[in-house]
Amino acid sequence: MAAIWILNGPGLNLLGQREPHVYGTETLDAIIEGLRQEASDVHDVELVARQTNHEGVLLDWLCEADAAKARAVILNAGGLSHTSVALHDMIRGISVPVIAVHLSNTAARESFRRRDLVAAAARGTLGGFGSLSYRLALRAAMSL
Amino acid sequence: MAAIWILNGPGLNLLGQREPHVYGTETLDAIIEGLRQEASDVHDVELVARQTNHEGVLLDWLCEADAAKARAVILNAGGLSHTSVALHDMIRGISVPVIAVHLSNTAARESFRRRDLVAAAARGTLGGFGSLSYRLALRAAMSL
Amino acid sequence: MAAIWILNGPGLNLLGQREPHVYGTETLDAIIEGLRQEASDVHDVELVARQTNHEGVLLDWLCEADAAKARAVILNAGGLSHTSVALHDMIRGISVPVIAVHLSNTAARESFRRRDLVAAAARGTLGGFGSLSYRLALRAAMSL
Amino acid sequence: MAAIWILNGPGLNLLGQREPHVYGTETLDAIIEGLRQEASDVHDVELVARQTNHEGVLLDWLCEADAAKARAVILNAGGLSHTSVALHDMIRGISVPVIAVHLSNTAARESFRRRDLVAAAARGTLGGFGSLSYRLALRAAMSL
Amino acid sequence: MAAIWILNGPGLNLLGQREPHVYGTETLDAIIEGLRQEASDVHDVELVARQTNHEGVLLDWLCEADAAKARAVILNAGGLSHTSVALHDMIRGISVPVIAVHLSNTAARESFRRRDLVAAAARGTLGGFGSLSYRLALRAAMSL
Amino acid sequence: MAAIWILNGPGLNLLGQREPHVYGTETLDAIIEGLRQEASDVHDVELVARQTNHEGVLLDWLCEADAAKARAVILNAGGLSHTSVALHDMIRGISVPVIAVHLSNTAARESFRRRDLVAAAARGTLGGFGSLSYRLALRAAMSL
Amino acid sequence: MAAIWILNGPGLNLLGQREPHVYGTETLDAIIEGLRQEASDVHDVELVARQTNHEGVLLDWLCEADAAKARAVILNAGGLSHTSVALHDMIRGISVPVIAVHLSNTAARESFRRRDLVAAAARGTLGGFGSLSYRLALRAAMSL
Amino acid sequence: MAAIWILNGPGLNLLGQREPHVYGTETLDAIIEGLRQEASDVHDVELVARQTNHEGVLLDWLCEADAAKARAVILNAGGLSHTSVALHDMIRGISVPVIAVHLSNTAARESFRRRDLVAAAARGTLGGFGSLSYRLALRAAMSL
Amino acid sequence: MAAIWILNGPGLNLLGQREPHVYGTETLDAIIEGLRQEASDVHDVELVARQTNHEGVLLDWLCEADAAKARAVILNAGGLSHTSVALHDMIRGISVPVIAVHLSNTAARESFRRRDLVAAAARGTLGGFGSLSYRLALRAAMSL
Amino acid sequence: MAAIWILNGPGLNLLGQREPHVYGTETLDAIIEGLRQEASDVHDVELVARQTNHEGVLLDWLCEADAAKARAVILNAGGLSHTSVALHDMIRGISVPVIAVHLSNTAARESFRRRDLVAAAARGTLGGFGSLSYRLALRAAMSL
Amino acid sequence: MAAIWILNGPGLNLLGQREPHVYGTETLDAIIEGLRQEASDVHDVELVARQTNHEGVLLDWLCEADAAKARAVILNAGGLSHTSVALHDMIRGISVPVIAVHLSNTAARESFRRRDLVAAAARGTLGGFGSLSYRLALRAAMSL
Amino acid sequence: MAAIWILNGPGLNLLGQREPHVYGTETLDAIIEGLRQEASDVHDVELVARQTNHEGVLLDWLCEADAAKARAVILNAGGLSHTSVALHDMIRGISVPVIAVHLSNTAARESFRRRDLVAAAARGTLGGFGSLSYRLALRAAMSL
Repeated sequence: MAAIWILNGPGLNLLGQREPHVYGTETLDAIIEGLRQEASDVHDVELVARQTNHEGVLLDWLCEADAAKARAVILNAGGLSHTSVALHDMIRGISVPVIAVHLSNTAARESFRRRDLVAAAARGTLGGFGSLSYRLALRAAMSL
Repeated sequence: MAAIWILNGPGLNLLGQREPHVYGTETLDAIIEGLRQEASDVHDVELVARQTNHEGVLLDWLCEADAAKARAVILNAGGLSHTSVALHDMIRGISVPVIAVHLSNTAARESFRRRDLVAAAARGTLGGFGSLSYRLALRAAMSL
Repeated sequence: MAAIWILNGPGLNLLGQREPHVYGTETLDAIIEGLRQEASDVHDVELVARQTNHEGVLLDWLCEADAAKARAVILNAGGLSHTSVALHDMIRGISVPVIAVHLSNTAARESFRRRDLVAAAARGTLGGFGSLSYRLALRAAMSL
Repeated sequence: MAAIWILNGPGLNLLGQREPHVYGTETLDAIIEGLRQEASDVHDVELVARQTNHEGVLLDWLCEADAAKARAVILNAGGLSHTSVALHDMIRGISVPVIAVHLSNTAARESFRRRDLVAAAARGTLGGFGSLSYRLALRAAMSL
Repeated sequence: MAAIWILNGPGLNLLGQREPHVYGTETLDAIIEGLRQEASDVHDVELVARQTNHEGVLLDWLCEADAAKARAVILNAGGLSHTSVALHDMIRGISVPVIAVHLSNTAARESFRRRDLVAAAARGTLGGFGSLSYRLALRAAMSL
Repeated sequence: MAAIWILNGPGLNLLGQREPHVYGTETLDAIIEGLRQEASDVHDVELVARQTNHEGVLLDWLCEADAAKARAVILNAGGLSHTSVALHDMIRGISVPVIAVHLSNTAARESFRRRDLVAAAARGTLGGFGSLSYRLALRAAMSL
Repeated sequence: MAAIWILNGPGLNLLGQREPHVYGTETLDAIIEGLRQEASDVHDVELVARQTNHEGVLLDWLCEADAAKARAVILNAGGLSHTSVALHDMIRGISVPVIAVHLSNTAARESFRRRDLVAAAARGTLGGFGSLSYRLALRAAMSL
Repeated sequence: MAAIWILNGPGLNLLGQREPHVYGTETLDAIIEGLRQEASDVHDVELVARQTNHEGVLLDWLCEADAAKARAVILNAGGLSHTSVALHDMIRGISVPVIAVHLSNTAARESFRRRDLVAAAARGTLGGFGSLSYRLALRAAMSL
Repeated sequence: MAAIWILNGPGLNLLGQREPHVYGTETLDAIIEGLRQEASDVHDVELVARQTNHEGVLLDWLCEADAAKARAVILNAGGLSHTSVALHDMIRGISVPVIAVHLSNTAARESFRRRDLVAAAARGTLGGFGSLSYRLALRAAMSL
Repeated sequence: MAAIWILNGPGLNLLGQREPHVYGTETLDAIIEGLRQEASDVHDVELVARQTNHEGVLLDWLCEADAAKARAVILNAGGLSHTSVALHDMIRGISVPVIAVHLSNTAARESFRRRDLVAAAARGTLGGFGSLSYRLALRAAMSL
Repeated sequence: MAAIWILNGPGLNLLGQREPHVYGTETLDAIIEGLRQEASDVHDVELVARQTNHEGVLLDWLCEADAAKARAVILNAGGLSHTSVALHDMIRGISVPVIAVHLSNTAARESFRRRDLVAAAARGTLGGFGSLSYRLALRAAMSL
Repeated sequence: MAAIWILNGPGLNLLGQREPHVYGTETLDAIIEGLRQEASDVHDVELVARQTNHEGVLLDWLCEADAAKARAVILNAGGLSHTSVALHDMIRGISVPVIAVHLSNTAARESFRRRDLVAAAARGTLGGFGSLSYRLALRAAMSL
């Protein structure tokens, strides 16, 4: 069966150390580890999980996932969510469905986080649940 | 164990008949029925599910849920999400955690849906997954 | 034949006493009385006429009119016209056509009346003609 | 008895051929013909009907109608409605009452149609009813 | 002598428990009790005090107070103060003078509280003094 | 000696009859007559004075004045002052200096009069002095 | 006991003569006289009352009041309320509590009065009650 | 074969003399002459070339070109490009394809040139290449 | 006969040395000297001319001119024109008519000079004519 | 002779597959192949053609083209056109002329595409002609 | 050698006592003392250091420093930095170079501090380093 | 002792050749060379200096500097300063203090440079001093 890709953008490599009152204390590796467990146990699906600080790499990976006929992409684009027209256009340009994920509740933060160009091109969006956001997105991805 | 409350705002009584290309064809009753099943089978928790077109009634129910020491409130405030400072203030004023839910992906719609005052006061937010949004919110509520 | 519903929102109960230089001196009852006469004499159609200060009640009535297969709704939502996304969504969600009516010419008033969310979801809009606005709307409703 | 003037601005010469899903399939001549019939049969009033693509000509005609002591002007200024301070000022400067008319429901269209400078200076405004808009305006004009 | 009405909007039922660092620890009942004492001892006037989470009920009560020829209305509309054109219009439509009251200093809070449509239609406004705001408003009401 | 051109835009033909509390009771002909007197007596310069409701005609006249090597143009573009990029560009494109004139004090009126594209391209601007504005502009023109 | 300072900014020297329909007919001296009476009779507290048209002097006086350990400052900064970041910063920098006062109801006036930088830094704010505003502020100051 | 129409708006008659650092030193006649040469030599198509300072005339010509079944219209509307909703609507209302042309690069100029209502209704847009813009547009027109 | 006051604000002491391409090379003293000559020769009126960098002093002088029953005030408030609500309020509060003057054409400069709060409260405004602006204002003042 | 560089940004690798109703069905390789043919046949110039999803790589390539003394750069920066101040600055910093190209007509799309920072720094801009946009840009580049 | 002037605006007299978490605990006198030491030891330059709460006095001092041919002015205008067009104009009008200094990092604070009119007219700007800001500015001033 | 990192973003490789009237004639290498000298002679600290046109590389380097326990980072993010939420978030997420540096005075340039997201997350900011900006930042870094 086609895999589900978990793509993470700028700063998510710092998880567990960066502003723990906002983002929690779990590392990205730990989150991914738990997700793999659940993917395997509950959903019987393979995960491809990556992180990068480069917008361009995220764009490349979206194309790669599309070419690989991924079942879905779970995308946490971090701060790029609010500024990247290029990500917006790419998500609309590929066929694989994308789910936008945030650890924190961006609606409750600075006004420059109010516009979410990634979410605007995605199928659905999820935020504010910490690492649980990824697990919920996984289940959503399995139901698309 | 404390119940989880599912509160639905204006227009959700029309589900299944209103703009099905946006909101899907399932009725609210059918969605709630499925949720009850899942609540009982998977989470062993009781649901209280209600719908109203009145902002004031939603505000009253939030107080009632708080007084009843609900485990969590899953709130789909519909169009009120984008205009109601009163709901924003009430969610911040009560102790029970609130999860904001949308059937459609509001980030992809009109600009007047960009500001979400309900989400801004909630713990987390979910949108764009149709009736699945409620199921994901239920799982999130069980993990708060 | 299906009836035409005349739904009136906040403050219209004050007609004839509130800011007569803006809204005229006729009461809502007198306006409705004249309308009934015209509906009976000219159009041979039944009217259902109501007034409420509650947004929620207006929303309920819109559903009720839809369920009753009203021929059309003539809606004067008063100040709610400029703020209620819920009314906007409900009008788009029901099948009965809605005509937005104002007694005063809102385009000539404060800037916060410039956006009309009710009109934006309605078939057509009418304003500035005092009680004549209702009669014109009645004729429009008969032609939809 | 003084005549009622029907003044039409840019693009209305294209009626019946231009974007029929927005503006309908009736030509301006056909609409005017119907109006004349109604003016003669129902209201016993003469009509003066004209169309121009020139803002300046509309301004001249408003002065001419004022000098001719027209009973009222029904003005569909098309796209000029949203940009012309000159029309706004002229309507306020003449004595003849002006009714602003639109075929389409401008409140439901692009945001640059939200401000209506012509409507803001007129007695009342009507839009969204297609050619019926003119007939309603005629009745309104007879009641001013 | 005509009574003074103290009308309280959404969330004020939570006083004493909701965000005490913003709104203080006194309950609304306690505040009203103190006010009654002062109304009786100092001003020899009767109070009518109510609370509701419903905008529509506030609108009804304003009409009722007007019909009852109340001496003045002290209105704390909570979050509705910043969004309700309907309250704005109703206050301008009735004859009884209205004083807008806030417990907190809204000028020092979020930008969406900067516009106060209730205050804009009221005689005067008071905010930031906690429960003392009501006592000051009572004295102001006695001097109108 | 080269003449000074006085060009008047939309609505100035109504002077003396249009909103006299804003624009005064003198007609444009009377104003021009007085100006000619002063031009002849004091400045020994010839005047060319015209009025039109057409932006295009104003644009043509500016070119004509430029070709005729007018000494200066005194331009009251009326409502076009606030909207016409074409006038702005034309004034910047010709060599003859232009002075922007208003009868009323536009800074004290509606916010849509705050931007003055004609003044922004002119040498200087004058407003609020009624017909005296023209006389002051004449003196200014003689000193350029 | 520490005194209460009443500091008045630009234009308040004109009270009684300036726009009496907005600001009333009482002079500042008369208002202060009445306040002193009430301060002495009711509150047994000394008043220091001053007026200046200079922002800088108001800033100096705030420092002076702070150094003198004033009990509170009642500040009517007039038009500076809406523009002075310096007053905002100074009020936040000193220890003495400040109450912002307006004679008129600024919420009902021009949009450039909507932002109140003085109120935003003050403990509380009061406006629209004419000279009574000062008396209410005095009572508030005694309760801080 | 159907002709290609080159329609030029306000100020383009000044080409070669107006702000040469912005618009170049070639006259409109010279540009058109070169275009005719290229139209005849390369594309074997007839040109209809006109210039006017009147928005209304441009609107008329668009209708005329549409009626004449022109192959395409190359339109340089000058400053009207940024303000004319009427041109926007007309271009959308006719069948002949329109190409929007600018001599200068409007994206690099004042912010009021950022919105281009003509380009927004056209097939494509070209700017910043001086008179070459027209030649490129001609080639584009031949390929539509 | 009552004198005319020429009040100059911040930076005008630098005239002749500050940005001569914007403000010219004449000093303020030279301008005033010329004005006195013209006031004496042509208008037979006395001038009171002052300059200050202090907003507060300008406010004081406006009161002083009002108390002295000046015939008119010619006010060049410099950069304060665009920021001072206090000057705006004071001009509206006094009886002496005020004429707002600028040396440069502020409409052609930075966008933060677009709003002119001093002009908005003045009788009329003049700008862009260099020192001639004062002479024109003097003539205007004699005609008020 | 120096080569012309064709630089393509994010998403252009998807051409032919991504939103064909917006971007057409031709692949980027096919477009480039056609361009090379035309460059060789008509213009006798060499092309360097590249695509990347990375803003940084585009920035590097612009420097490389500048160092290689390219004759011109034809740049389609995709979604980065609307957000990248870095591209804007780089284009202004290098000597090689840049032509901004779009396949679609961005003026007719979402409002966040209205500001084009790449076009604002380029010599000229072209959009809406599909792959023809590149050919037109090639001819423009040969004429710079 | 010409001296360097350190001019301090509103509220800086409170340093050491006002919001120490924002501005630090050092007094202005202590900062100046340290600066004098460094000026003498390292740079061999004399300092003139002053503080005022008056915008007008700052403006006067800038003129005085200019007349005294100061080497440079280090200006901390406090809250006036964000509102004073008069300071902006004065800095542009004098010859002495000005360096804008802030103790706190204004970019990280309220949005009304985002525009810095003083910095916009200065040579360079420095902020966020507490009292070190002054020392860095001193070194910068010695290098101008 | 821990090193200080000097990280340079897009376009800084062009220093000395790009817009020398804005950025000066010194190359980045020369600036860094001078800085190393000063770091060694005055501060006895090691420098790590890098430049990239890639936002992602800057983000990586910030993480690397954090992991290497750098003493401070001096960051000139060029045009990214005004658009990158990702850099903003990363700076807040790491422990090493960051100083934002600009060669030019961005407050005096285009309005899209007014918001500085990098500065908003940094300890302090410096701009307008050309290469001296780096030396001042170095001294600041040594004092953190």
